[in-house]
Formats: sequence, C-alpha cells, structure tokens
Amino acid sequence: MKLLKDKIQKLAQIKDGDVLKVDMFLNHQIDTKLLDAMADEFIRRFKGKKFTKILTIETSGIAIAYPVAQKLGLPLVFAKKQNSVNIDGEMFSAKVISYTHFREFNVIVSTKYLNDKDNVLIIDDFLANGSALRGLLSICQQAGAKVDGIGIAIEKHFQKGGTELREQGYEIESLAIIDEIDEKSNKIVFHE
Amino acid sequence: MKLLKDKIQKLAQIKDGDVLKVDMFLNHQIDTKLLDAMADEFIRRFKGKKFTKILTIETSGIAIAYPVAQKLGLPLVFAKKQNSVNIDGEMFSAKVISYTHFREFNVIVSTKYLNDKDNVLIIDDFLANGSALRGLLSICQQAGAKVDGIGIAIEKHFQKGGTELREQGYEIESLAIIDEIDEKSNKIVFHE
Repeated sequence: MKLLKDKIQKLAQIKDGDVLKVDMFLNHQIDTKLLDAMADEFIRRFKGKKFTKILTIETSGIAIAYPVAQKLGLPLVFAKKQNSVNIDGEMFSAKVISYTHFREFNVIVSTKYLNDKDNVLIIDDFLANGSALRGLLSICQQAGAKVDGIGIAIEKHFQKGGTELREQGYEIESLAIIDEIDEKSNKIVFHE
Repeated sequence: MKLLKDKIQKLAQIKDGDVLKVDMFLNHQIDTKLLDAMADEFIRRFKGKKFTKILTIETSGIAIAYPVAQKLGLPLVFAKKQNSVNIDGEMFSAKVISYTHFREFNVIVSTKYLNDKDNVLIIDDFLANGSALRGLLSICQQAGAKVDGIGIAIEKHFQKGGTELREQGYEIESLAIIDEIDEKSNKIVFHE
C-alpha cells in the first residue's frame, strides 16, 4: 500500500538493528486518516469473506483494528496482555514472547467473546517472528473459531513469522512488507 | 447519554464493591457503533472549541478516542503506561496510581507530540479518583499545552475525582455519571 510505505519511508526510524519506530503515525501518535485508508485496503483485500469478528491485541493493534470493525459493522475484541482484576471467569490464554520488550507474557481473551461460530479476521500492527500472532491463533483454536484472514500493517519479511504461517495455510495480507532495513544508512527496502 | 446508560444498565456487572465491568462493549469487546455515537456526543458537547489534538491513555482510552479524532480530523496521541524500547528521546512523564490494578506506574508522552501551541481534548473511559486524568493534565502542563476539554465515558460520581477537577476549572463532560452502585442487588443509579 503506497500511502503506508511512503509514510514509513518518510517518517520511520530504525533502532537497535531491526526495530522500526513508527510512533509518529502508528503507535504513539496516530494518524486516523492513514488508519482509515488502511482499513479500506484490508477490506478490499479480504472482499467476499464473511467475517463475524475482528480480533487484535493490545495496545497498538486497537487503533488499527477499530476502523476495520467500524466499516464492517463487526464487534472488535482485543486480547489482553496480562491478568486484570477487571476480567474474570473463563479465559482462553496463550504465551507470547515480545522481542521488543524482551519478556514473555500471557495473552487472554474471555471465553464470552470468541466461539466456534466465529469467522475471525485478525488485525495487528507488526509481523516479525510471529509470536503474538501465534498466540492469537492458539486462542482462536481453543475457541473453535475459524481464522479466515490476517491483516498486518507492517511485515518484516526478513524475519520468519509471515513465511512460516503462510506455509501453514493462513491468508496473510500485509500492507507494507519490508525485505531489508539498515540502521546506519536508515535505508528501508520494501518487498516488490 | 441514553444509549450508553442503557448499555451499562443492561450489560455492566459490579465487582469488588465498586468496580464496574464493561468489558462486553467498552474495554475487551468493543461495540464500534456505540463508540461512534459517543464520539458524536462528545463533539456536540464541545462544539465551538478549536482543538488541535486528542489525548488519551492506553489501553481502554484508545478505542474511545479513535472516532473522536477521526471525526474531527485531528491527530490522536495516547500516553503509554511504561517505558518501552520503542520510545526514546525526551518524554513528559507523570506518576499514576491504578486502583483497579493496585499499582503505581508512570505515564509518558514523547515531547515530539505535545507542545505549547496545542489545545487538547482529553478522552478517557473512566473517571473515579482522577489519578490517570491528573497524570495526563500534568503532562499537558509540562508541554505548555492548554486542556480545553475532558470527555469521559463513565464517571463514578461517588468518588471525588470529577468534582475536584471541575472545582479547579476543568470542563469535564461525562456521558454516563453514576451516583451509586450496589454489588449485591447489581443496582446502578445514574446522576440526573
């Protein structure tokens, strides 16, 4: 998606070798015009699918998933990253490793909000090693829900998550796929 | 706002004396139709104000603030609850006590996204003791930004945050103000 790639090329910064900072439009300050356009593009790419629910994971996934759920008129469920006193009852749970935060955590979704009649579109900001995504897929599997599409804002193609999950048969649409980043020259090469 | 009050009356559950669980439409599963209507109501109540930025705090504030920023065509900034490797550079920071999570944490906003030319509308899900809100107000003050309005989904009027901050001159619009909740009878009394 040209609009997103242009934003990345113009505004993103590379840190610590392969961390892409997009906090000026995606995950600290949010450009709702861009995210609305990204939602339109996700909907175009998954046209014809009959989703029942949008699933994402806090925090950065929420703003990206909101306009998708809004435009499709579907409920949006976000997986939570820790146990909160505000959640009780039965939960689906999966372990996720965050490489940007150097820690392991549980993601949870209440059993009330996913079930075996759901046809899920998963939306998230980044796909790199795929750990967060695997957590969400495990939660959907526990619920007996079908995952009929995965929409990602930025995929780091030089890491293995996207390739592995596509090989497993998942339909993943990433709006910007990055083949190569170089911190020294701040160079970002997109996948053609 | 009748639509929100009806949802609360019908779906919210009371826990631990005074914790209101609204995870079926506001902070785990999200009803985007309701949140879109809430955004329209915030915009109506603050009509005539010339905001430059919407400020909220992760996690639950993001979905509520998104359609407000979207409809007003303004950037949305969300304060982060901890230090992340994905943020660097100068930051505004404030200490917040979470009564639902029984812990103290820092909220941070990069100095890049708030400045003394900003006229801010703060949006958040709950106002009870006002600790999170005071953190956001402190951050705006550090930035030299003006806070010209505060929009809250649910205010617990039996706790003192809203009253104190109104006395300090802040214009707070809460879409559902609760005078009394009773866990045993699951009774919720709204402020008229």
